[in-house]
Amino acid sequence: MNPVLRAIRERRNNVNFKPIPIANENLNAILEAGRWAPSWTNSQPWRFIVVKDEKIKEKMSEAVSTFFKMSLREAPLAIAVCVNPELDPFHFVEDGTTATQNMALAAQSLGLSTSWIGVFSMRNEKNSTERKVKAILKVPKKWRLISILPLGVPKFKQRQKRKDLAELLDFNTFHVMEEKERLLETEKTSKVTRKTLVPRSARELGTGIV
Amino acid sequence: MNPVLRAIRERRNNVNFKPIPIANENLNAILEAGRWAPSWTNSQPWRFIVVKDEKIKEKMSEAVSTFFKMSLREAPLAIAVCVNPELDPFHFVEDGTTATQNMALAAQSLGLSTSWIGVFSMRNEKNSTERKVKAILKVPKKWRLISILPLGVPKFKQRQKRKDLAELLDFNTFHVMEEKERLLETEKTSKVTRKTLVPRSARELGTGIV
Repeated sequence: MNPVLRAIRERRNNVNFKPIPIANENLNAILEAGRWAPSWTNSQPWRFIVVKDEKIKEKMSEAVSTFFKMSLREAPLAIAVCVNPELDPFHFVEDGTTATQNMALAAQSLGLSTSWIGVFSMRNEKNSTERKVKAILKVPKKWRLISILPLGVPKFKQRQKRKDLAELLDFNTFHVMEEKERLLETEKTSKVTRKTLVPRSARELGTGIV
Repeated sequence: MNPVLRAIRERRNNVNFKPIPIANENLNAILEAGRWAPSWTNSQPWRFIVVKDEKIKEKMSEAVSTFFKMSLREAPLAIAVCVNPELDPFHFVEDGTTATQNMALAAQSLGLSTSWIGVFSMRNEKNSTERKVKAILKVPKKWRLISILPLGVPKFKQRQKRKDLAELLDFNTFHVMEEKERLLETEKTSKVTRKTLVPRSARELGTGIV
């Protein structure tokens, strides 16, 4: 397994971080990874906000779901990934996501860890976490906030599992006939996975991307 | 620069591929990279369809925008990334995107290349590329198609550029006052970037994620 495949395989969300600051060199490498993400027609509609201010981080932690509060409190910094739909009206969610995932993998490769908080509200609802965090970070109305990525030295190693590849795979066309069977199988697997993963109610995980 | 940062830095879309098949071992490693992507509450709402059938690939190439037709014709296979919004109603676009980006990076790490075709139609429009390709691949109505990822040995090295990090970066809060200035700067950069990148009209790039 080459180092790229290993980083992909070993990346997990972490919500507990050691009180160790991030070296500028590492932060820069992680932001660079965001910058080199793909985007629709190379529109690069991003703005990355690096939040180190403790008061702002605390406000953000109050806005996100319970599961993620700790990650914003313990991480020495968080990166907020904003996108401008005027620069890409069609695929701005994907653009923000590729940048976030690149940064999460870059952090993993540097011995750091992240907590992928997907705050984007598809329906742009008024009381959404996205709106609350946008207000805290003074993000203009027309911009959208895709994710917040608390970043730090992880306290623990996470071990969430995944479904078997066989459950996810088809050849040439989608096989509807097998779907029922698969879903039953999926349900079984999910129960185990969720038990490992989710310490509180699913409701609290509204913004949780693991 | 470690191998992960290098793969992130060097990954580009390719639309021209050599007529060389993909070893099963490599295909498996790439699909594994998709499987280990993060998703909302670890819901893993994916189905990956590996398309090798030439007739189906040809139909898909007829459905996508001009810029990408070649990639589906020349690549020995394509992976279609589907998601089930019933398993994740809130972040299924992000889920499909993290899996796609992981697979694109895994391919890069194995000396292969991909063409990130973002076919997802945010408004789920009737005549969208997404609907057309879903019909070809017999994807059930309730599932959504996020991307198609033609995969192969690249014929050429691509060199699309990115904006400077300074143009994308803020600290603690979004700086609206600087926005106008930045946008002007962005426009300048975009002209150069687009010239390098876009050989035809932007219209033809409707599904283009670079």
